[in-house]
Amino acid sequence: MKLMRVGPLGQEKPALLDAAGQMRDLSAHVADIAGAALSPEGLARLAALDPDSLPLIEGTPRIGACVGAVGKFLCIGLNYADHARETGKEPPEEPVVFAKATSAICGPDDDVEIPRGSEKTDWEVELGVVIGSRTKYVSEAEAMDHVAGYCLINDLSERAFQSERGGQWTKGKSHDTFGPIGPWLVTRDEIADVQSLSMWLDVDGVRRQTGTTATMIFGVAHLVSYLSQFMTLLPGDVISTGTPPGVGLGMKPPVYLRAGQVVTLGIEGLGTQRQRMIAA
Amino acid sequence: MKLMRVGPLGQEKPALLDAAGQMRDLSAHVADIAGAALSPEGLARLAALDPDSLPLIEGTPRIGACVGAVGKFLCIGLNYADHARETGKEPPEEPVVFAKATSAICGPDDDVEIPRGSEKTDWEVELGVVIGSRTKYVSEAEAMDHVAGYCLINDLSERAFQSERGGQWTKGKSHDTFGPIGPWLVTRDEIADVQSLSMWLDVDGVRRQTGTTATMIFGVAHLVSYLSQFMTLLPGDVISTGTPPGVGLGMKPPVYLRAGQVVTLGIEGLGTQRQRMIAA
Repeated sequence: MKLMRVGPLGQEKPALLDAAGQMRDLSAHVADIAGAALSPEGLARLAALDPDSLPLIEGTPRIGACVGAVGKFLCIGLNYADHARETGKEPPEEPVVFAKATSAICGPDDDVEIPRGSEKTDWEVELGVVIGSRTKYVSEAEAMDHVAGYCLINDLSERAFQSERGGQWTKGKSHDTFGPIGPWLVTRDEIADVQSLSMWLDVDGVRRQTGTTATMIFGVAHLVSYLSQFMTLLPGDVISTGTPPGVGLGMKPPVYLRAGQVVTLGIEGLGTQRQRMIAA
Repeated sequence: MKLMRVGPLGQEKPALLDAAGQMRDLSAHVADIAGAALSPEGLARLAALDPDSLPLIEGTPRIGACVGAVGKFLCIGLNYADHARETGKEPPEEPVVFAKATSAICGPDDDVEIPRGSEKTDWEVELGVVIGSRTKYVSEAEAMDHVAGYCLINDLSERAFQSERGGQWTKGKSHDTFGPIGPWLVTRDEIADVQSLSMWLDVDGVRRQTGTTATMIFGVAHLVSYLSQFMTLLPGDVISTGTPPGVGLGMKPPVYLRAGQVVTLGIEGLGTQRQRMIAA
């Protein structure tokens, strides 16, 4: 299934993308694409519906983040060996974990704000993992049972705020609109091999990132198990799993985003995003 | 006002502590001590109630975290000059910001889990600031208008997970029960000078931390204004403002918590907490 949330910010309705690419309203069956709806039982209930029986959503409403009520927005740093090198760092020995503010979450095609005073706003195409059930001290073998599905994320970052303003990355990762998520939450059953998905990102139509989840240092099952040793993951928590090479910080000289530019990105099977940069 | 949440975990009811120290049920007036209830208007509505008209809560129910639906649990590191020194670091030039997982939040007297494999679980008495209204790019002069009130927090930390496991502090700050908050949200009007509150913490009855918010490097108004330059603070967001000297990491040799020990702590005007350490 491809699950989505459509409508104005804060008033999104749950929806399903049918085989013909039409949006179908799920409001009669689930309050939100969030919490218990993401559990194996919740997803099974939605999968049992006949998409043709669901009301069509007409027109072209705004697409919201594909998960609602996100409790934790966790990210993995330097999780592609070649990206680690372009930032001048050695590949990590165990996952580097940081948090983005949940208030940074927005829809896949929403405008992205360049923060006031920012000169180093950067892009990062990433595979997102959406947790479906309570996850604490799970083994790598059990981990995937706790994953509801996957989504596309742009982990926008202000590099000066992240690394030149007194330690800890949260400051550079959390500006409003720095977390476009979606368009779809694609359930796990639809992705044959999550460690073999191609990914790309363009700035103003120029290819900047080309990668594949095959070159992740720590794969999805390992990350879910690893994180669950440090905190309990809950339904609707989102893990952004790191970015392949090609970020602005890695260019020589570095290149960053300016208001008016357009970023487009995609991951195989997970759809595409398009964001216009605007001044905050 | 002193606002609280009482009842089993996840089913807490909103309550008010009256002048006689009795708990009064606010359920008929507000759904939770959260979100819009924390706005100036929301708090004014609660302040207009006659406490004697509210139902008494009988017995000794569990006390939950004093804020519900916390969206962001932000913390300030090394915000007392003498604590910075005991960790071997220079006082920071600007606030060090990190995030705790919201799933770490628990009641003030709940048992605290020592994570599996932990040998360095540490304590930190801290002043908590609860945001009351949307806060983006506010000046220091405006900042306090966005504060609903204050609370007591124990910012529990696993020092090895925090600093010896590959960068970024989130991993050592986010274990379940590492964020006792409460017992009360004390509204801003009840605290004459938030930068002059004494604070203390005992382990098994032995005094470990003694401090005052007077020695903070960056005060509350500065922190709220500062954070709002990097992300939008929303009603119910909690900021833990750093700890005074006396943490286990700073002792020579360092001393850490073990299952069976009891931590008690308090801040002048904000109540006390008592946690028993248990194995995860």
